[in-house]
Amino acid sequence: MTDRADPADRVDPPALLDRLAAEVGAEAVRLGADASPDLFVDETLKARPVAPAVVVTPTDTAQVAAVVAVAAELGVPLTARGAGTGLSGACIPEPHGIVVSFDRMAALLELDEANQVAVVQPGLTLAELDERTAAAGLVYPVFPGTLAASLGGNVATNAGGMRAVKYGVTRHQVLGLEAVIGTGEVVRTGGRYVKSTTGYDLTQLIIGSEGTLALVTEATLRLHPRLTHTASILAPFASVDEVARVVPRIVASGVQPMILEYIDRATMTGLLRMNDLTLGVPDDVMAATEAHLIVVLEGRDEQRLDVDVAAVAEQLAQAGAHDVYVLPAGQGADLLAARESAFWMVKAAGADDVIDMVVPRSRIPEYLRGVQLLARTHGSKVFGCGHAGDGNIHFSVYEPDAARRSRLLGAIFAMGHDMGGAVSGEHGIGRTKRRYFEQLEDPAKLALQRRVKAAFDPAGILNPGCIFCDA
Amino acid sequence: MTDRADPADRVDPPALLDRLAAEVGAEAVRLGADASPDLFVDETLKARPVAPAVVVTPTDTAQVAAVVAVAAELGVPLTARGAGTGLSGACIPEPHGIVVSFDRMAALLELDEANQVAVVQPGLTLAELDERTAAAGLVYPVFPGTLAASLGGNVATNAGGMRAVKYGVTRHQVLGLEAVIGTGEVVRTGGRYVKSTTGYDLTQLIIGSEGTLALVTEATLRLHPRLTHTASILAPFASVDEVARVVPRIVASGVQPMILEYIDRATMTGLLRMNDLTLGVPDDVMAATEAHLIVVLEGRDEQRLDVDVAAVAEQLAQAGAHDVYVLPAGQGADLLAARESAFWMVKAAGADDVIDMVVPRSRIPEYLRGVQLLARTHGSKVFGCGHAGDGNIHFSVYEPDAARRSRLLGAIFAMGHDMGGAVSGEHGIGRTKRRYFEQLEDPAKLALQRRVKAAFDPAGILNPGCIFCDA
Repeated sequence: MTDRADPADRVDPPALLDRLAAEVGAEAVRLGADASPDLFVDETLKARPVAPAVVVTPTDTAQVAAVVAVAAELGVPLTARGAGTGLSGACIPEPHGIVVSFDRMAALLELDEANQVAVVQPGLTLAELDERTAAAGLVYPVFPGTLAASLGGNVATNAGGMRAVKYGVTRHQVLGLEAVIGTGEVVRTGGRYVKSTTGYDLTQLIIGSEGTLALVTEATLRLHPRLTHTASILAPFASVDEVARVVPRIVASGVQPMILEYIDRATMTGLLRMNDLTLGVPDDVMAATEAHLIVVLEGRDEQRLDVDVAAVAEQLAQAGAHDVYVLPAGQGADLLAARESAFWMVKAAGADDVIDMVVPRSRIPEYLRGVQLLARTHGSKVFGCGHAGDGNIHFSVYEPDAARRSRLLGAIFAMGHDMGGAVSGEHGIGRTKRRYFEQLEDPAKLALQRRVKAAFDPAGILNPGCIFCDA
Repeated sequence: MTDRADPADRVDPPALLDRLAAEVGAEAVRLGADASPDLFVDETLKARPVAPAVVVTPTDTAQVAAVVAVAAELGVPLTARGAGTGLSGACIPEPHGIVVSFDRMAALLELDEANQVAVVQPGLTLAELDERTAAAGLVYPVFPGTLAASLGGNVATNAGGMRAVKYGVTRHQVLGLEAVIGTGEVVRTGGRYVKSTTGYDLTQLIIGSEGTLALVTEATLRLHPRLTHTASILAPFASVDEVARVVPRIVASGVQPMILEYIDRATMTGLLRMNDLTLGVPDDVMAATEAHLIVVLEGRDEQRLDVDVAAVAEQLAQAGAHDVYVLPAGQGADLLAARESAFWMVKAAGADDVIDMVVPRSRIPEYLRGVQLLARTHGSKVFGCGHAGDGNIHFSVYEPDAARRSRLLGAIFAMGHDMGGAVSGEHGIGRTKRRYFEQLEDPAKLALQRRVKAAFDPAGILNPGCIFCDA
């Protein structure tokens, strides 16, 4: 990574503002001091907002390229920002840096039904995309925790969510990008096709790079037929091991579940209470339950769906479920909405952090037991729910002491890593997990990633401090 | 790219042999002059074999790493080789270089049913993997033209094939890699999970890089339930436009066809003759047909499959098919086998080249018409078949004059590129298409790709001359 400007050489904010205004117009730039503090942080628990020197709200790719070129010339750090729903602090800027906010680049540029793709600007929200695709009988099948998220941020973090077990994550649905690399050059990658062996796959490299390689200015997304029939099944189990055993069997049967979620008893009790839900599970069953499994199926017609529901229900019963509840449509939707709101519940409950390691599906019980053991050892509390179908477990961590919390998280990450897992399944490394990532990552691979970053960003201006400790 | 050794400084083959033998043992090294010429070329039409200085057949990753380290130190080009079924010359070595042949790293290391993954060495063939996964009721769903291909080569070229419309291509099925980068360092990427946002996705970057970034020594592959019921439908259409119109409708209906192939009349006639097949299509229908569409469906049970077949048949009839033939199981399999053998037919017929551009599905008719127009203009003959479901069209090109053929190919690639397509959907750029690729690629993006290559391969030893004109 090349050296950036010494603090003493930093451009003072008014001078930077003038320089950027000359490129993109005065109406597109503000001093950080004059901007809304909402732009200085994301949803990361306990994260502190940081005001940048300047906030830019470009209206097109040429303006983004001009801003990046100025930043590269002056050695000023630059952080892209979408809806700010991230959970790893990846869009928290540097105090002497620039925030590029995509509020004014938020259009659905094209809904191409013949090729089943949508072409979007980074500021477009999932909610708006979902509304527009629904009208065409199509769906963009990535549903992370909130539909308030924007597509640019989804690409930057490789957003996942509950439907990943069927549809994969953002990287499986993005066919092409337009992006501005750290030199200020605009590159277009991929296209309206699912296959290509024509040079390196820069699309996939940029996805999940958390704003450290390029600023995405346009994305071409794959759409799917929107299946209209869904059914939700709830099965309480006495042990996580039983859940872990039945999940691969359901996947292997070929029914292609859309959602396979595990929720521990504490989290389920909290979710039901907070959302004023009753599912008809008797108290004694609830008390004897360590883990709830939610299975959601979708289908093209009611009859086929009924057959699939019966098949899954039988598998669940055979696997030792206390009972199998096929939820009426409304109740199923309520339960899923409650599950989506889990983050807000744990935030309200005063959780100090949330983590989302991914481990091989078969290691889930071992990982869950290990996490509880580590929590007890550290005198902390940890509750979980997660994507049982893909091994991505979300834990809320209650440990107010920062040093002890850091030791606990370090121990959890090291354990999951040794099981063949990765630090984050979908939230990203951002600023909050970079130390853990650097500690666990193979040094040769880390050095390779820094060289790749330098290939995209020779001046080291793109989101420094994100992913890597010293960018 | 750093400078490589001047020809005058080249290590002479016996000295190189000795140096490598000291690292990996004498039994693992041979002079190129003593090796089988089968190792010097792939299936590329008109390609000339090139004997390297030395052939190495390592038995483990440590040996591969040692060989790469020596090559980096001496500045000797190094080319990886699997089964040699490629069609772009990507495994043709440099005359003063090293071929690393993976004959002795060809094991299925693990079939992990709980996580539905296979861990394979690069020399393992698809045929063997298919046999082993079938026994477990699972399938690795990438079926390029030949099951004789090896997994290492499949990863290097991001192999596709007929089932890509349902299952995607190699990059959608590879979860992790072990690979040796150009420094001789071993990196492990990804894991037994489908989602991760933990640093850059080096797995996806290495896939499709045609041996220019790293030598893959192990791959973790995603497996799927093997569905046992399939049905094949053949529909002759008067025009390619009708085929192009019905394809998105079939995809949008949600039946998830496994195969959606288009075959032009000349190619179909040749395939039927060469394979001694009759499908019951009357001569007058055949004569009035410009394009045949083959649809293959798969399902978990016969009843559901029958419903899907009826739905697709109705769509085909409504779209103007001359007739709709639901083929008996044996005949369907024969037709697909014939389609898979198309390459051998065109080779036997004396084709001078095969190309496999990908264009947005909706542009297929325009692309096909444009190609025929260009062929007539150049006085050449071009016949086609291809993956209608994903826009990847294969053409056999009959033009013996090299200069004229080069002009024709240049014009076809430029036209497809202008339609939003890419030079190769699955064969790769290799050595045969690098000039066209470099001409059409945006210079800033090309320079970025060269910097990425330098990040992996600072000495510029990995498959120089592949993808880029001067590596």
